[in-house]
Amino acid sequence: MKNKAITDREVDFAQWYTDVVKAAHLAEYSNVKGCIVFEPNGYAIWEKMQSVLDKMFKETGHQNVYMPMFIPESLLKKEGELIEGFAPECAWVTQGGAGNALEERMAVRPTSETLFSDYYSSKINSYRDLPKLYNQWCNVVRWEKETRPFLRTREFLWQEGHTIHETAKEAEEETLRMLNVYKTFFEEYLAIPAITGRKTEKEKFAGAEYTYTIESLMYNGVALQSGTTHYFGQKFSKAYDIKFLNRNNQQEYVYQTSWGVTTRMIGALIMVHSDENGLVLPPKIAPRQVAIVPIGNDEQIVQLANSICDKLKASGVTAFVDTTDRTPGYKFAEHEVNGIPVRVELGKRDFENGVITLARRDTREKITVDMNCDIVNEVKTLLDNIQSNLYDRALKRRDELTYVCQNMEEVEKIMNTKPGFVKAMWCGDQECELKMKEIRGTKSRCILENEEPVGDKCVCCGKKAKHLVVWGIQY
Amino acid sequence: MKNKAITDREVDFAQWYTDVVKAAHLAEYSNVKGCIVFEPNGYAIWEKMQSVLDKMFKETGHQNVYMPMFIPESLLKKEGELIEGFAPECAWVTQGGAGNALEERMAVRPTSETLFSDYYSSKINSYRDLPKLYNQWCNVVRWEKETRPFLRTREFLWQEGHTIHETAKEAEEETLRMLNVYKTFFEEYLAIPAITGRKTEKEKFAGAEYTYTIESLMYNGVALQSGTTHYFGQKFSKAYDIKFLNRNNQQEYVYQTSWGVTTRMIGALIMVHSDENGLVLPPKIAPRQVAIVPIGNDEQIVQLANSICDKLKASGVTAFVDTTDRTPGYKFAEHEVNGIPVRVELGKRDFENGVITLARRDTREKITVDMNCDIVNEVKTLLDNIQSNLYDRALKRRDELTYVCQNMEEVEKIMNTKPGFVKAMWCGDQECELKMKEIRGTKSRCILENEEPVGDKCVCCGKKAKHLVVWGIQY
Repeated sequence: MKNKAITDREVDFAQWYTDVVKAAHLAEYSNVKGCIVFEPNGYAIWEKMQSVLDKMFKETGHQNVYMPMFIPESLLKKEGELIEGFAPECAWVTQGGAGNALEERMAVRPTSETLFSDYYSSKINSYRDLPKLYNQWCNVVRWEKETRPFLRTREFLWQEGHTIHETAKEAEEETLRMLNVYKTFFEEYLAIPAITGRKTEKEKFAGAEYTYTIESLMYNGVALQSGTTHYFGQKFSKAYDIKFLNRNNQQEYVYQTSWGVTTRMIGALIMVHSDENGLVLPPKIAPRQVAIVPIGNDEQIVQLANSICDKLKASGVTAFVDTTDRTPGYKFAEHEVNGIPVRVELGKRDFENGVITLARRDTREKITVDMNCDIVNEVKTLLDNIQSNLYDRALKRRDELTYVCQNMEEVEKIMNTKPGFVKAMWCGDQECELKMKEIRGTKSRCILENEEPVGDKCVCCGKKAKHLVVWGIQY
Repeated sequence: MKNKAITDREVDFAQWYTDVVKAAHLAEYSNVKGCIVFEPNGYAIWEKMQSVLDKMFKETGHQNVYMPMFIPESLLKKEGELIEGFAPECAWVTQGGAGNALEERMAVRPTSETLFSDYYSSKINSYRDLPKLYNQWCNVVRWEKETRPFLRTREFLWQEGHTIHETAKEAEEETLRMLNVYKTFFEEYLAIPAITGRKTEKEKFAGAEYTYTIESLMYNGVALQSGTTHYFGQKFSKAYDIKFLNRNNQQEYVYQTSWGVTTRMIGALIMVHSDENGLVLPPKIAPRQVAIVPIGNDEQIVQLANSICDKLKASGVTAFVDTTDRTPGYKFAEHEVNGIPVRVELGKRDFENGVITLARRDTREKITVDMNCDIVNEVKTLLDNIQSNLYDRALKRRDELTYVCQNMEEVEKIMNTKPGFVKAMWCGDQECELKMKEIRGTKSRCILENEEPVGDKCVCCGKKAKHLVVWGIQY
C-alpha cells in the first residue's frame, strides 16, 4: 500500500521531496517569502543533530558563545573578499525604534567571521590566550532568490565554529579535525556516505585561503554540499588586527579557521533515505525510534505495550505507546510517513499465539518474535541493522552513480541520462570549470587529494592534468 | 582577600554588577550598539537554563518549533494593540539582496504571536487538532534606548511558548501551569524566591486579556520582572482568523496563551546571589559544580585529584581538575570569581595529614574532611547545602526588604531610604498608579490574588481599595 499523498520519486523527484516534507509534517511554507516554519517533527530532527554534534564539538575542546546578529556595514567591509561575496545576499536593517533611520545600516549576519574577529581583536594579548575554540548555534540570513525547504531558505539555522591559533599548522589541523568530525557525523549518525576534499579556487569560501568540503550524493544523483571547513590563514587577523605576542616576544597575527553545517542536513536525510511512503530516518538520528501500537483495547495487550515501552526507555531507546483513538491502519501509515524506524505491533491473534510483530521502516519487512524473548535486545539489534542497512544502501546507490570520465562527451552523456558523481582529471584552469558548468550546471565538488589519478589529461581541454576532481550537478 | 577588580556592592551597585559580568567573563560589550557578546561562561549558564526548562516544557506536553525571524509589516499590524505596543521598539529590514528596497518592510521579531497565529490559522480545522502546545528558543530584538548586559539588550535570547486551546478554561489553566513551571524553576534551580500574581491593566502585555508575572527582588531592593505568561482569550484568534469546528459542529475561535523567560535571568542570578568576590551560582544551575585543585606536582596528589574527579563525574557531578600552570592562589581566585560552588583543595600537608579541604563559594568557608571519607557523598551534601543556603539567604534578604504601607508618606520614606517590595492596597485607578510612579519610578509589580488584604483603603487616594498590590522600583 502506497501513501497517496506522495508523488512517485522516479516520476518527479522535486515534487516527491516537497510531498515528503509536507506529509511527514517537517516544515510548512510561511507568509514570509523564502522562510519556512520548522514544525515539531522537523525541529526535533534538528535538536537531535544539535545534541550529537554539540557533544562532538565539546569533546574536541570547543566552547559555545553567542555573538550579536547584526553587523554594522563598516565592520562587514573590513575584509574585502568577504563583503564582495556576501553583499548581494544580505538583508539590511536600516530603521530602528519608532521608524528612525539608523546612522549606519546593519546586515543581518550571513556568517559571523567579522564579529568573531572583532571580538578576538580586543581579547587576545599573548600566545597564552591561544587557541580560542569557539562555536555558536544560531540563525543566519542569505537573501536567496530561489528557495526550497531545508535546502535553501533565506533564514536557516546552523552552527559556526570560529577558532584562532598560534601557528598555521595548528589552524590547518583544526580545519581537518572538524572536517573529520563532520564526516563521522554523516557516516555514523546520518548514515550518509561522505566524500571530503578541497574546493577549487572558484568554489572556495569568500575570504578563505582554502576550503574543505563534505559532499554527499542524493538519490536522484544530484550532489549536495553538506558542510565546509575553512582555513583563513592571517587574512582576517590582518584585516581585523588580531595580534598576539608570540613566544619570541614579537607581535604576530593569529591563524584562523571557521566551519559550519546547517539545517540543510535535514534535506539530505530526506533525499538520501526516504521513499514513496514518506520519511525514512536512521535510528541514531530519529527523535522517536520505536512506536508501539496495541491493537484493540484488550487490557492485557495495553499492559504489555506499556511494559515493553518502559523496558525500552530504561535501556535508552526512545519509545512511545500509541493509544490514540484511531484505526491501526491509520497509525501504521502515520508512523511510517513520519519515519519511525521500528514499529511494534501487538495484535490479539499474535498475543494468543505468544508472538509479537516488529515492522522495520527501511525495508518495510515484518518480523515475528516470541513474546518471551529479550525484546529490548531484539529491538536494539533491529535498530542497529536498520542503521547499517541504510548506510549500505546509500553507499551502493552512490557507487552505482559514480563514474569515471575521460572527455566531455562522456560527461555530457552521463549528466544528461543518469547523473551522479563524475571523477575526472582537471588541468586547474577556471575556463575548463566554466565549460563543465555548461553541462546542466555541473560544478567541481572537490579536489581529491589522497586518491589515485584516473588519467593524465584534463577532461575538458586535454592538456596536462593537475588534479583529480569530483564533479556533480549541484543543489 | 577581596577581588580588586570588583567594586563594593554597597558603594555602587551598578558598577559592581558590571564588574562581576566582566570579571567572571560572562559577557563583553560589542561594537553593535546595545548588543552583547555572550562569552563561554555566560553562555554555558544559558545552556544549563535551557536544558532544565526544556525538559520541564516537554514534561508538560510541549513541542519545539521554529518560526521565521522576520515579520512583514502587514502581518504585524493585524492585531492593533500589539503593533501599538511594539512598533516603537522594532528594528526594520527594508533592503534585501544587492541593496534592493523591499516592497514591504519587515520587523525583526520582537515577539512571535503574529507568526504563530498566522501559522495556526492555516493548520487548525477541528477540535481534534487542539490543543497545540508549541514553544521556540530563539533571539528577539527590541530597540531599547538604555541597555545593560543581560538585563536589557537590543537583541536577547529567550523562549516563547504559544499555545491554542478548545476552551477558555483550558487556556487559562495553561497560563497558570506555565507560571508555576517558572516559579518552580526560579525557586528550585535559581534559588530565587519568586512572587507571582496578575499584572494591572496598565502593566499587562500589549494584546493580552491578562498577564501573570513572576517578580523577584534583587540584593539592592530593586524589583525584576523575571517571566510572564499571558492569556489572550480570542483576541489574536479573531484578528488572525484561527477557527475550528467545535464539538457542537460550530465554527469557533481558539483560546490562546503565550509565555516567556529570557537571558535576563542571568542578570537576576548575579544580582541576587553574587558578592564582592564575583559570581555566586546555585549548584543546580552552575555549568561546572566542582573545581579540583592539586597543589604542587606531587604524582600521588594529582592521581588523587583525578580519582576524585572521576568518582564525582560518575555520580553526575560536573567536576574538573585544574592542572594549568598557575599558582594555587591564582586558581582559587579564578574559580571563586567564576562562581564554581565547591573547590576541592589537595595540598601536600593535608595529604600527609590524611585530610582534604573543601571550600564552599557561598560562605567562603573551608571544611576539612578525612581522605578516606565517602567524598562523593560529602561533596553532594555540600552542594545541596549551598543550594538551600542560597535560597534561604535570598529569602531572608527579600523578607527584610518587604514592607507594608498604608499611605504615600510611608512609601516615599521606604523607596528613598532602603527600597524593596511594598505591599499596599490599591483602588484600581490608573491615576493612582501614575502617582506612585512619581516616587522613584515605583510601579505595580503585580496584584496578589490569594493573600489577605493589608487594609481597606487605597494607599494613594484613600478611597475604597480593590486589590492588594506589590509595588517596587523596576529595573
